[in-house]
Amino acid sequence: MSPLTARNPNESEEARTSAAAAAGAGALFTEIDHVAVAVRDLGAAIDYYRDTFGALVEHREELDGDGVEEALLAVAESYIQLVTPTRDDSVVARFLERRGEGLHHVAYRVDDCAAALQAVKDQGGRVLDEVPRAGSRGTTVAFVHPAGAFGTLIELVQE
Amino acid sequence: MSPLTARNPNESEEARTSAAAAAGAGALFTEIDHVAVAVRDLGAAIDYYRDTFGALVEHREELDGDGVEEALLAVAESYIQLVTPTRDDSVVARFLERRGEGLHHVAYRVDDCAAALQAVKDQGGRVLDEVPRAGSRGTTVAFVHPAGAFGTLIELVQE
Repeated sequence: MSPLTARNPNESEEARTSAAAAAGAGALFTEIDHVAVAVRDLGAAIDYYRDTFGALVEHREELDGDGVEEALLAVAESYIQLVTPTRDDSVVARFLERRGEGLHHVAYRVDDCAAALQAVKDQGGRVLDEVPRAGSRGTTVAFVHPAGAFGTLIELVQE
Repeated sequence: MSPLTARNPNESEEARTSAAAAAGAGALFTEIDHVAVAVRDLGAAIDYYRDTFGALVEHREELDGDGVEEALLAVAESYIQLVTPTRDDSVVARFLERRGEGLHHVAYRVDDCAAALQAVKDQGGRVLDEVPRAGSRGTTVAFVHPAGAFGTLIELVQE
């Protein structure tokens, strides 16, 4: 507690805001890029979203590195990402075993993935990708570790 | 299997698409309204998103009926909803006990909440709200049960 704190009860919040501004933490998220849902049967999930909500597949891709197949359903400028494992050692396979089907991660679109990842590190956050890497549909992505992000697996996506 | 199926291998998919169209399942989702993150310390979570990503609170509200306090952080036309329980019998309190902090539900914006809810019922989906009810910031909402929705708690939000 600095002597200033006693004089101004808002000082600590102001100091934090200033620190954030100094660290370049303007509004980094330009859009919710996608919400990812882990499912066991990709075809059945695609049918469900189409038949119930009229949400249609805009892109479909198998990602060998991650051991997943995904379908992106367009919702305005965002996507619902339905994702299923293609092999047993996929992180999504382990997620399904441990927690069952459901929300897996949320991805925010950013202008500069490397800068956003650096902002996480600068604030003491843990990352799963030390440097940005290739994502689906030609994007550049990096994942933030849920520990230190209030239990949420966050993906940063640069188009 | 109708006799047509043998003549046209795509018939069953076409039939499903037609059924969906007949049931009025055009594109019901106009936007990802919000992604909800259950947290134990709302103030700390707000600080995290502001200091790391520059995401700022646009609306804050306590919902007595649900036993939660929420903060909405604007991201383009969508929100990050940080939500914390205000009493022990809140569904969010039970979620935190059972699964810990993290993604709680995803909300899709619709033009007509009652019509979207009816589409879920028409397709045999389970609902948590039989009829739409009041949500935060003056919206009308209804929740779809995760059983029958691939493990995802889905909220339908009409502004």
